[in-house]
Amino acid sequence: MAKKKVARKAPAARTRKRAAAKVDNSLSPHGGKLVNRVIEDREKAKKLASKAKVELLIRDQHAREIVSMAYGFFSPLDGFMKEADVASICKKMTLASGYVWSIPIVFDLSDDEIRSLGIKEGDTILLKYQNQPFATLDVEDIYSFDKKLMAVSVYGTDDEKHPGVKRTYQYKDKFVGGRITLINPPRINPPFDKFWYPPAKSREKFKEFGWKRAVAHQTRNVPHTGHEWLMKGAWFEAQTDVNPNECGVLVNCVVGEKRKGDYIDEAIVLSHAALGEHGYFKQGTHMVSILLWDMRYAGPKEAVFHAIVRKNMGCTHHMFGRDHAGVGDYYDKYAAHEIFSKIPDLGIKSVLTLEWWYCPTCAEVTYEGLCGHKPQKFSGSVLRSILLDGVKPTRLVMRPEVFDVVMMAADKYGFGNPFVDDKYLAQRNEVMTVPPMEV
Amino acid sequence: MAKKKVARKAPAARTRKRAAAKVDNSLSPHGGKLVNRVIEDREKAKKLASKAKVELLIRDQHAREIVSMAYGFFSPLDGFMKEADVASICKKMTLASGYVWSIPIVFDLSDDEIRSLGIKEGDTILLKYQNQPFATLDVEDIYSFDKKLMAVSVYGTDDEKHPGVKRTYQYKDKFVGGRITLINPPRINPPFDKFWYPPAKSREKFKEFGWKRAVAHQTRNVPHTGHEWLMKGAWFEAQTDVNPNECGVLVNCVVGEKRKGDYIDEAIVLSHAALGEHGYFKQGTHMVSILLWDMRYAGPKEAVFHAIVRKNMGCTHHMFGRDHAGVGDYYDKYAAHEIFSKIPDLGIKSVLTLEWWYCPTCAEVTYEGLCGHKPQKFSGSVLRSILLDGVKPTRLVMRPEVFDVVMMAADKYGFGNPFVDDKYLAQRNEVMTVPPMEV
Repeated sequence: MAKKKVARKAPAARTRKRAAAKVDNSLSPHGGKLVNRVIEDREKAKKLASKAKVELLIRDQHAREIVSMAYGFFSPLDGFMKEADVASICKKMTLASGYVWSIPIVFDLSDDEIRSLGIKEGDTILLKYQNQPFATLDVEDIYSFDKKLMAVSVYGTDDEKHPGVKRTYQYKDKFVGGRITLINPPRINPPFDKFWYPPAKSREKFKEFGWKRAVAHQTRNVPHTGHEWLMKGAWFEAQTDVNPNECGVLVNCVVGEKRKGDYIDEAIVLSHAALGEHGYFKQGTHMVSILLWDMRYAGPKEAVFHAIVRKNMGCTHHMFGRDHAGVGDYYDKYAAHEIFSKIPDLGIKSVLTLEWWYCPTCAEVTYEGLCGHKPQKFSGSVLRSILLDGVKPTRLVMRPEVFDVVMMAADKYGFGNPFVDDKYLAQRNEVMTVPPMEV
Repeated sequence: MAKKKVARKAPAARTRKRAAAKVDNSLSPHGGKLVNRVIEDREKAKKLASKAKVELLIRDQHAREIVSMAYGFFSPLDGFMKEADVASICKKMTLASGYVWSIPIVFDLSDDEIRSLGIKEGDTILLKYQNQPFATLDVEDIYSFDKKLMAVSVYGTDDEKHPGVKRTYQYKDKFVGGRITLINPPRINPPFDKFWYPPAKSREKFKEFGWKRAVAHQTRNVPHTGHEWLMKGAWFEAQTDVNPNECGVLVNCVVGEKRKGDYIDEAIVLSHAALGEHGYFKQGTHMVSILLWDMRYAGPKEAVFHAIVRKNMGCTHHMFGRDHAGVGDYYDKYAAHEIFSKIPDLGIKSVLTLEWWYCPTCAEVTYEGLCGHKPQKFSGSVLRSILLDGVKPTRLVMRPEVFDVVMMAADKYGFGNPFVDDKYLAQRNEVMTVPPMEV
């Protein structure tokens, strides 16, 4: 009996070993191949759509995730996750294939929807967004999953006050896993269109610039000088072994679900662009781009996700500062600095930075790791009142051109307010528009 | 005949190969072992001195070189070079042993001196400095050398206006090579004593600080904010793969022969120390030290020499900016950046930096590689007139504490002048004092 058990175990162990040997997390893009699930050919798209027997209207989160997956931002993901992937993420922060992945990307449906629409494995669903055919989903797996397990595994807490936990708990009861195909690529609207660099394009742009090193900056902020120097300091670390003109900063602004009091997306992208346009970064050392994604505030786990996405965009480095992608007090100040030492090499180097702040003694922006004077942290609430007041701050706190662009964006896009309010939530311009399509 | 030639060549080639295989230029200290030719025991020293049959008074350059060699700054050198070393340096920038070395360290004597004193190989000479027994020199080689070849090989020119060439041409006709022993260690006088860190001590200090990375800054300047940020930027590059508190800047001030118009040595060391004392560098990220050395202005060749000396002091990185150790227009602006790619790995990483300057648009010090505004270089002559005027500049040009220390040093050490003048040259305090010794 004992002997038999051993005999049964041996081949499984061998298989696992073989599977693990195939996984090289350092490949760029993640998994080795940039996913492309975009159909540009309208006729082909219509043909695909016509195969679907079921139609579903999807919400914004899923639309953004479909676009991000289809263009390869989330490579190697080519669709919503199956149960095995989610289980593996919860257990060991990898996909079932063994590649590191930290956040479930799932398509939730209610029992009722599945039953009433008669959705079953093998089906293709036509997903509609903004009332237009948008994408197809091949149903490969229908499953339920313990949401508390999912929440605790990803967020380290089951506290519903945590916005990521709340989002998890709001998922409907069932999940549908399977490959997606974007059959009706949306138009990215101004002012975001200029900053739309799906991975294949960002990689092209890096080549055009001659960048051998690209260091990613994750942001949902209008840049004060502390942010500017965070980027400049990280650039110094990234260009260590190349010529200075072979390294640049990729600002990647997360554009997705907004909360009241957030900076409006338009102010974020345009103010970052202003830093380059007005010479605070030299031409060819800086570019601004967007990522369609609803922040999960998963702290260290989201840092891993960000690293993978920016690797897919072609980045060689990713900066992580204080409280990266955190919220409240759920994570240690530098939890995102710790996690990378505990996982396999992702093929994108973490640039771990302390804080940059204004120092009255130095009379300039200084680095926590170097300056011996009394720290003067940039206060979010002071900056907020500066911007609400509309009184231009000194250029050592916020660049005047950044301030001007924020004011302009508030007028043009924010109904007079640089911060998200009810009116903006209800009436803002769409970031993307799905063009009409007859199927 | 042809066959015989081949047969004669083969063993020599094998020998060369074996010798080359032993040379690992990346060892730290250079050559693998820190040279220590210092006798602290007075009785032992006297016994050694009494063996010498010949006495010679030496000049400042040789005294400084003896101290630097004896304490291991110049490892693996343990004495003045023999002909084979100088020939090898001129031919291929290595010692006869194969280790990279770029500048001849030679002890010159006239034919007359050698004849009248009856100096011959096998002798020991007692070298006296400040009229005291100072060191012994074991005569292993007496030779002459083509000074033009020496000059052109090291300086790339035979133009006597080049101060290094001039120094070479002023050497007397013969050279004496052989091991030195410092039998009467000099006292380093205030204010330099606090900054006296021979390699064994600097290495200890790095350990005490917990530095895994130390980046060297070569200087003969009072630091303006551009220098400060040159160091800060280089620090960013050096600490890439460690924690920020495991990396520091070693300021190494060259103290040696002065030219009129140079900053006085006291102002240099004290003003650099002021940056640390007043928090422009955090405690534990910055230390100031001196190197006894007469600048050769050999540009790229001197950069290699500096790299080796700072490696011996325990540094892992060395910053090289524009026109490192250059003079006039003899070298390309970034010749010191080029040379390291053409020689074996010296085991100390070059941090190659462009310029830092004040930018009125940024309102701070910015980096040539990042700032897109019109460059505003720090002007040496403007700084000079600021200091001669004694009117405190803005803190974004020179730190007020640096300015104050320079003024103080001018009063205390420079006869009212922060720059070297005739009075300073004639009456300055000695940097080192050789204590009395009876032999």
